[in-house]
Parts: sequence; C-alpha cells; structure tokens
Amino acid sequence: MALRAALRNKCGLLSQLSSCGSHGRVCVSPVLVTQWRNSSTSSKIKVDFDQSTGVAVMHMQSPPVNSFSLDFLTEFCISMEKLEMDKGCRGLIITSSQPKVFSAGLDILEMYGKSPEHCGEFWKAVQEMWLKLYSSNMVTVAAINGSSPAGGCLMAMTCDYRIMADNPRFSIGLNETQLGIVAPFWFKDTMVNTVGHRTTEISLQLGTLYSPSEALKIGLVDQLVPEDQVLTTATQSVTKWLAIPDHARQITKSMMRKQTIDKLTSSREADIQNFVSFITKDSIQKSLRMYLEMLKKRRG
Amino acid sequence: MALRAALRNKCGLLSQLSSCGSHGRVCVSPVLVTQWRNSSTSSKIKVDFDQSTGVAVMHMQSPPVNSFSLDFLTEFCISMEKLEMDKGCRGLIITSSQPKVFSAGLDILEMYGKSPEHCGEFWKAVQEMWLKLYSSNMVTVAAINGSSPAGGCLMAMTCDYRIMADNPRFSIGLNETQLGIVAPFWFKDTMVNTVGHRTTEISLQLGTLYSPSEALKIGLVDQLVPEDQVLTTATQSVTKWLAIPDHARQITKSMMRKQTIDKLTSSREADIQNFVSFITKDSIQKSLRMYLEMLKKRRG
Amino acid sequence: MALRAALRNKCGLLSQLSSCGSHGRVCVSPVLVTQWRNSSTSSKIKVDFDQSTGVAVMHMQSPPVNSFSLDFLTEFCISMEKLEMDKGCRGLIITSSQPKVFSAGLDILEMYGKSPEHCGEFWKAVQEMWLKLYSSNMVTVAAINGSSPAGGCLMAMTCDYRIMADNPRFSIGLNETQLGIVAPFWFKDTMVNTVGHRTTEISLQLGTLYSPSEALKIGLVDQLVPEDQVLTTATQSVTKWLAIPDHARQITKSMMRKQTIDKLTSSREADIQNFVSFITKDSIQKSLRMYLEMLKKRRG
Repeated sequence: MALRAALRNKCGLLSQLSSCGSHGRVCVSPVLVTQWRNSSTSSKIKVDFDQSTGVAVMHMQSPPVNSFSLDFLTEFCISMEKLEMDKGCRGLIITSSQPKVFSAGLDILEMYGKSPEHCGEFWKAVQEMWLKLYSSNMVTVAAINGSSPAGGCLMAMTCDYRIMADNPRFSIGLNETQLGIVAPFWFKDTMVNTVGHRTTEISLQLGTLYSPSEALKIGLVDQLVPEDQVLTTATQSVTKWLAIPDHARQITKSMMRKQTIDKLTSSREADIQNFVSFITKDSIQKSLRMYLEMLKKRRG
Repeated sequence: MALRAALRNKCGLLSQLSSCGSHGRVCVSPVLVTQWRNSSTSSKIKVDFDQSTGVAVMHMQSPPVNSFSLDFLTEFCISMEKLEMDKGCRGLIITSSQPKVFSAGLDILEMYGKSPEHCGEFWKAVQEMWLKLYSSNMVTVAAINGSSPAGGCLMAMTCDYRIMADNPRFSIGLNETQLGIVAPFWFKDTMVNTVGHRTTEISLQLGTLYSPSEALKIGLVDQLVPEDQVLTTATQSVTKWLAIPDHARQITKSMMRKQTIDKLTSSREADIQNFVSFITKDSIQKSLRMYLEMLKKRRG
Repeated sequence: MALRAALRNKCGLLSQLSSCGSHGRVCVSPVLVTQWRNSSTSSKIKVDFDQSTGVAVMHMQSPPVNSFSLDFLTEFCISMEKLEMDKGCRGLIITSSQPKVFSAGLDILEMYGKSPEHCGEFWKAVQEMWLKLYSSNMVTVAAINGSSPAGGCLMAMTCDYRIMADNPRFSIGLNETQLGIVAPFWFKDTMVNTVGHRTTEISLQLGTLYSPSEALKIGLVDQLVPEDQVLTTATQSVTKWLAIPDHARQITKSMMRKQTIDKLTSSREADIQNFVSFITKDSIQKSLRMYLEMLKKRRG
C-alpha cells in the first residue's frame, strides 16, 4: 500500500522508496545484462537492461493476460522512473512474456464492486502510466507480440514506434464501447495523434479491434514482422532511433506531445472524478458484471 | 413563417408546434413501418420509421435537386427534432428520392436578390441543420445515391458514415470557390475532421469535386457499392453501429465532435453577420447571377 | 544593412526602399517577359514575370546549394513583397537554377561562430520568409528540381502545391535532428498541416529524408514528374489554380492557415530568444562545427 500511496503524490516515487536501494547494477562488462527485480517478491514486470547498448527491455509477465492491476501499474511506474533517472538508459522496449497477448488492458476487477476511493486510486495510476510513458525521454518501442485491446492498445500507442507480430489471430484497438464503457479524452487524444481524427472517430465509436494488417494500413502500428522476429526487429529499431542525438530528439518529442500531456496534467483531478462517477453507476457496474461472466464462461 | 420564426429560438421547435400533435405512430406491430408527414401539405422530406429496428429513413424529395431552401431546412430540423426525442429511434439514414442527385446543397435563390434579413434567417437555418445533425444522438448514415456538391457534401460529412453509389458520373465535394463563394469555418472544420488538414486545404481552395473512387481514396466517403445497393448497405451499416451500447457510443461521439460544435455555437451571431455582409456584396451577387444564368442555359 | 534593418520592422520593406524605385516593368505587350533584378548587383534570386499569364517564376541562383543566408532571405522577402503588391501577379513558382538541389536550407555559417545579435537578426529573416510565403495571396507552387533538406523542405511545404523531380537521388525532409539541432514549432506546425501529426512526429524525431516516391506516398509532395518537366508541370498547375476566383481562393487559404500564422506572429520575439539561446550553446556550436567539417571533407 505504500507504493500505491506514493502515486498520490506529485513528487517522484523513488525518493520515497529508500528501502528499494539503488539500481543494483554493476558496471563489470559492457555486454553484461542485468535483470532488475523490484522489492516485491512477485514481480509483474521483468526489466533486462543492456548497458552496452543503453537499451532496456520490459517483459510484462502478469498471468494470464498482463492486465493492468493497481499493483501492475505501480510496478510499471517505479520501473519507468528508475530507467528514466539512469543516464545510461536511452531506449526502452516493452513486450510480453505471456503467450498470445501483449496486454488485455485495464484490470476490470479494480473497477467492479470497488469503493469510489479505490476506483479513484486505480485511475490515478492509469493516468500516471500514460504520463510517464508518453513523456519519456527514452526512445520507446512497443514489441506487440500478441493481442492488445483497450489499455493494451493505449500502452502501445503511447510508445514512439510499434512493431506487431503478423499473426491474423491477434488484434489491437480501443474497444471500450463494446464493453459499454468509454475511453477518456486522453486515450482519444493519443489515438488522434496516431491515426488522425476520422479513423479515431469511427473506431472509437464502434470499438473496433483491428487485425495486424488492418492496423498497419490505418497507421495504428508501424511495422509487421513474423512473430519470432518482433523483439529482434524492435532492437534494430531502437538502435536506429538512438543514432539521433538525444537532446535534439527529446526536445522534438516534447514539442510534438506537450500540448496533449498538458491537457491531462491540468485536469487530472476532474478526470478522476469523472471516471469514478461514471464507473460506479449501477448501469455500468452491471455491464462490467455481464462482461466478467462472459469471460468466465469462455475460459470455463 | 411560424416554423421559420421558431428557428430563431434556442428552445426546441416541437414545443412550439402543438398543432403538429404527437408523432402519430401506433405501436401495433414491431414490423409496422410508419410514414410521417409534417403538417405542411407539400412535404420536402419523407420519413419512414421502422419501429422493429429503431431505424428511420429520411427521403429527400424536393425536385429537382433537393436544394436546401429555407422551407427544406425548416422541415429537416423539425424532423430531426422529432426523431431525436423519440427514444425508440436510434438510427437514421438520409437518402434522396430524386434521380442522380443526393442534394445540390444550399438553394442559391435564398441568397440572390434577397434582403439581409432573409439571408440571415436562411443562414441560421443552415447552421441549425448542421448543429442538429453533427450532434445527433442517433447513428447517422448518408446513403449517397447521386451527386453531392457543396451543402450536399456537408450534409454527408456531418453523418457518422457515408456510403456512395459507385457511379463515375456522380461527384462529391465542397466546390464553393468555383462559384466565387467561400465555405464557412464550420464546413471547413467538418471536412478537416473527415479527410485531414492537407486534403481540405487543397480541395477547398480548388473547389474540387471528386468521383466516387477518388472520394473513397481520400476518405471523403467510407464505402462504395452499386447504385441499387446503397440503401440496403446503409441499413446493414446502421445495424452494425447499433450493436454498440447507445450511451457509450453517444458519449464517445460527443467527445469527438464537441469542440467543433462549440466553436459554432459560441459564435453563431458573428457567423451570420459575416455571411450576410459577404453574400450581399455586389460582386458576390453578380457571381451568383452568372451562376444562375449558366444553370438556366444548361437546363434549357 | 539597411535591408536587414528593415526586417526588424513590421511595416513593409518596400516603403523603406525608395531607392529601389518602382517595379521597372513596362506594359508593352501581354507576352512580354520582364526580368527583375534587385538593386543589389549580385542577385541571389532571379524573378521572371509573365504579364500575359500573371505568373512569376523565382529562380534561386545562389551557388552552390541555394543556402538561405541573411542576404538571400532579405532578397527573397523583398521580391515577395514586390510581387504581392503587384495586382497583376497572381501566381508564383519557386524553383532552383542550381543543379541537383532545390535548396539546402538555412546557411549554417549564419549561425556558427556568430554573435547573439547576428543570430537573432538571421532568425527574424527566416521567420519573415515563412510568414510572407505561408500567407501569400498568390498561388504558390514549389517546382522541386533537386534535393530539399531542412529549410528547403520548409520552403516547399509553405507553398500551396509541390511538384518534385522523380529522381531517386534527390531527397526531401526536415532532417534537423540529424545535425543535433531542432526544427522550431512553426516548422513542425507546417509539417503537421501537410502530412499529419503521426508522420510529423516520426520524421521530425528521426530527421528522415525521403526519396521522391516516399515523399509522394506520405503527402510531403503532391506530384512527381520527370526532371525536365518539373517547371512546365508547375506552370500547368498554377493555371489550374488561377481558374478559381482570387477572392474566394484567398479567403479560403487564409481560413486554413490563419491559426498557424497567428501562433508565430504573436510570439516572434520569444521564438527568436529561444533560437538564439539554443544555437549559441557550446554543445550546439560544437555540433555545427563537426557538421561543417564533415561537409568540407565530402566536398574536398
């Protein structure tokens, strides 16, 4: 709960996590790959950092579908903050260790049958995930090696570049309306910045999930490769981006994204209130229950 | 004139039209198709409402080319308001009963040789048409079964989805500059939201009319089908959109369009003044006269 | 220096250049082609004006690569102002007299090892070039008959229409980050208006230079033709655009571009300060020196 509480503050997480100690990396060899583990024993995210290249790989490993629970988001934000503070880390690849799925997005169990306080805390963590990733100084590449609906799609769109496995059984999109819920304005803004206004209007209203080839066609992903080449291609992409001087790339990135980020930063509290009052409605809770029961049946 | 006067008020039209009575539909059978007729004997718009599907079809039937006269626009707005207030009506298809044309757009006779007061009243009705359609809670589909220049194109762009007859003799676009007049900012905004900034810049300046295949390519329409399948395809599309929960779709639609709508709502009076002072200029009136004479010759 | 000083003022340049005299064109014959030369003996821009068509052609002739030096920009702005004031001149084609290059963009020698005052004066001239071209009442067409990186790409994007030579050895793009510098917000805005947000984000960060066919695909240029047909095609394009009534086209163009122009106009001084403090940094000066040395070696 200490980690969760930290999300309530604007100041950095790391400063409050002295028990985590330093990064724990040893500069022995430029090819040494150091694996981070947070103090938590059940880590939902594994970070491999290659000091020789300056590139970290985040493996999401939260079975079964890398749902964004409050614990997951907290761990994600702490990892981001560690990497961001490390001058040697210039690039980040996000991928999944789970089969067939990149991430299923927000964990519905954090919104169903929970107190308004809990829902608000959860939403603040979702905001924080997006803010940290969309404003990252690192080159960020999504290695989308499985389906990526809703919040999973958001995470991918929030990166600088998207490589997806060319498997027609995978899909990606902001499908919130299909569940009877609504993507907030900053999900929408991120999508408009990625695929333009018209495609966003139609796909957000219909909650469209796109096949990889459709996603490529509308610009929702940048590149398709065979499933077993997603990570290697992501590594090559990061290398290409890192050939650009960091300061020029970072200023340019900030110039492209600042307005969108400021919009949420200046209205976080109102956005949380808006989410809480929406999600705690009886009709919405009923929609979530029906969806959860449908999921149970499918798995049963 | 009572109907026209009603357009001057912000409050709903129906409240002032007690003589129109209720919708006049009888809930006898779910497959019953009820045809509405406004109190006016010479109806310019025929509305078929299918209670079993919740979908209404508006047939524009104002010979020869469904021009948006003040009477037409007044009738359109009243029909929209009726449908919007009917909880059972969730989808709307707009199509034409005239051969070869969807709509030729604004009726030039309402702007040529008319008083500033009349021009202002007319422009307010054009604004109202756009506001009602762009902010509609219904799923709106344009079944474009003929040419659709200027205001006709605007009406189509204002819907949620556009299906056009794949007939190379038909065309669609905002061709105002070719007539020496100018599309106002909210026509422009609607087009930018549909096809993006660059395509809008080039096509508005040149007043480009696109063939159906060109229109599909730039995203001005969403789908092409043979002429005799436009309406059935529109019906299938509406069905697909109505599978999404109304409240989630409506909130999402509003989020996508609110900013554009607010821009006109907050400057309607200035926009009217701007239009009136432009259209009543001698040079513009001369352009309109030349255009009308050209039309006469073409038909003669 | 008088010309340069004039750039500091908001009022027109010509009013302060009485020594330049009138345009020096004689209305003898409608097919007469008059060549302008500015008072400067070493003209960097040659303007051919065809009174019969109302179209001027600007030939950039500043060896070796039409770099935008302060002198070049000053001459460009004066030429623009002359043409703009001439009611008979309705269209402008910009092209290069140098082989293989349209323009290499900003002259680095104006930013390297120069005083803050000089850098500020230079930047004001770059702003003025863009403001004059982006807000021009004339139809402006870029006849891109060679490579067009950085500021050269900006000049092309600032026109109404872009025709490029279909030679795979030519390239175009805003490649500033590759040099360790950053395109300012109005370069970015111009690119977003041309190719959209996502393509701008990726190409500005990577400093991508596109081949003509790639540039066509993303919408960075509008048309590709064989190298020897660039100018004739540009002439045909201007003719097509001039078929539209000037006043309607001009109002429409202003409507599309006003917001972007106002953004710079209302923050010119801050933008200059921002540029000066950035470009005079030791680290940036070092980047520029390395780039200049690389250029020397390449040519040597």
